[in-house]
Amino acid sequence: MTSIKVPPEHPRAESLQIREKLVEYYHRGVVASAGLIAHGRGEAFDYMLGEKITKPALNAVKAAAATLLTAEKAVISVNGNTAALVAEEIVRLAQITKAKIEVNLFYRSVDRELAIKGVLEKAGAHEVLGVGEDASAKIPELGSERRRVDPRGILVADVVLVPLEDGDRTEALVKMGKKVIAIDLNPLSRTSQKATITIVDNVVRATPKLVEIVGKLEHDLKKCNEILLNFDNKKNLAESITLIKGRLSKLAEK
Amino acid sequence: MTSIKVPPEHPRAESLQIREKLVEYYHRGVVASAGLIAHGRGEAFDYMLGEKITKPALNAVKAAAATLLTAEKAVISVNGNTAALVAEEIVRLAQITKAKIEVNLFYRSVDRELAIKGVLEKAGAHEVLGVGEDASAKIPELGSERRRVDPRGILVADVVLVPLEDGDRTEALVKMGKKVIAIDLNPLSRTSQKATITIVDNVVRATPKLVEIVGKLEHDLKKCNEILLNFDNKKNLAESITLIKGRLSKLAEK
Repeated sequence: MTSIKVPPEHPRAESLQIREKLVEYYHRGVVASAGLIAHGRGEAFDYMLGEKITKPALNAVKAAAATLLTAEKAVISVNGNTAALVAEEIVRLAQITKAKIEVNLFYRSVDRELAIKGVLEKAGAHEVLGVGEDASAKIPELGSERRRVDPRGILVADVVLVPLEDGDRTEALVKMGKKVIAIDLNPLSRTSQKATITIVDNVVRATPKLVEIVGKLEHDLKKCNEILLNFDNKKNLAESITLIKGRLSKLAEK
Repeated sequence: MTSIKVPPEHPRAESLQIREKLVEYYHRGVVASAGLIAHGRGEAFDYMLGEKITKPALNAVKAAAATLLTAEKAVISVNGNTAALVAEEIVRLAQITKAKIEVNLFYRSVDRELAIKGVLEKAGAHEVLGVGEDASAKIPELGSERRRVDPRGILVADVVLVPLEDGDRTEALVKMGKKVIAIDLNPLSRTSQKATITIVDNVVRATPKLVEIVGKLEHDLKKCNEILLNFDNKKNLAESITLIKGRLSKLAEK
């Protein structure tokens, strides 16, 4: 594939450059074709959210940071898009929160698992779970290949961070008694609705923000508990939906 | 690429199957990687529209049919996604309305132009404009490769149907004095806002509907003029936006 330069005068040049990055990682075997389509869905919701971190998203990031810092066994589940866009931030987040990193894919293939592992290791990861035969355990009630998990990782975790997750799997993880933190631009998706904490934001913005807040809260357990006591995911999600409706009205007036 | 079967119990199996089709055509060199992402954006808006043809979309389809039937020189502009999803309907539409078919791409390459031409010919097209050196004319004011058009087609057309178009180009075509009919799931996009007639619907539904309505109006010029007199694109677009807001409220209540 010949890479075609985005005309710099294009009004959506920044968004187009992120696309080009995903396409590049697609050709490197990291991102699945379905991942490109999923990115497009995210773009549409991001456009409606105003392409910046919102107040409810920031609240959810704080609750997510507190949850990760107070977890017994936290795991960050990584797919192709996440690795392509925020590998370094994921590795830093895992380091500060002492979380494990596990590759988990809807469209599984050992080649792609290894490609993602490679990206994570290049970004500084020392251990990457869930690759090949390591994903030997199964989440109950799931039909897709995504049910396969690492017995040292997601299977025994109490908290799982799932950027860009599938609704079925979020639901199954919650049913297993785990706290699930989702990053999803669609506040109406089943992932968003089923997760314990839903960050309605672009991973490109939410992940570095999560790293920043985790750094601030790292030694303040009291503050973490206070944040968690005051956080209501349903209410927070409703605020994101209200924001989108308000912005649609504004855009429609133009 | 090994094709992975969509689990039939998946709640979004139908949508996933359309995705698989696009991915297949991507591997056949018809769809661009950016086309996969664009499809995702469309999916998000389609979800918010309720994944069925709406009343304003039907009104726009009628106005589009009347415009195509009363055109002097109509051209249907085809890109990779359109060819992958509705090649046969495009060919039928061109036959009934005596429109020409022209390949026009944001990410141009002769290979892809030829692949799209092949799909259209297989669907029954006798003539496909805009391929290779045939796209020798230029639309003024456009930076991208999309400015290249066929001097027998878009350059001299009075009406251009652009399913899945780029905002810049829609604007440039309108500035050249052409009537532009767009099919776009995002009622807020520049394409939707700049087009003469905007069908806010999925091409998979809008194109067969357009063929059906064109067939009904084919010999009724009086009815065509009546439809056009009563159609207000701005008002119709506002109705689509109102529908989305209403549906967001409903979904949020669940």
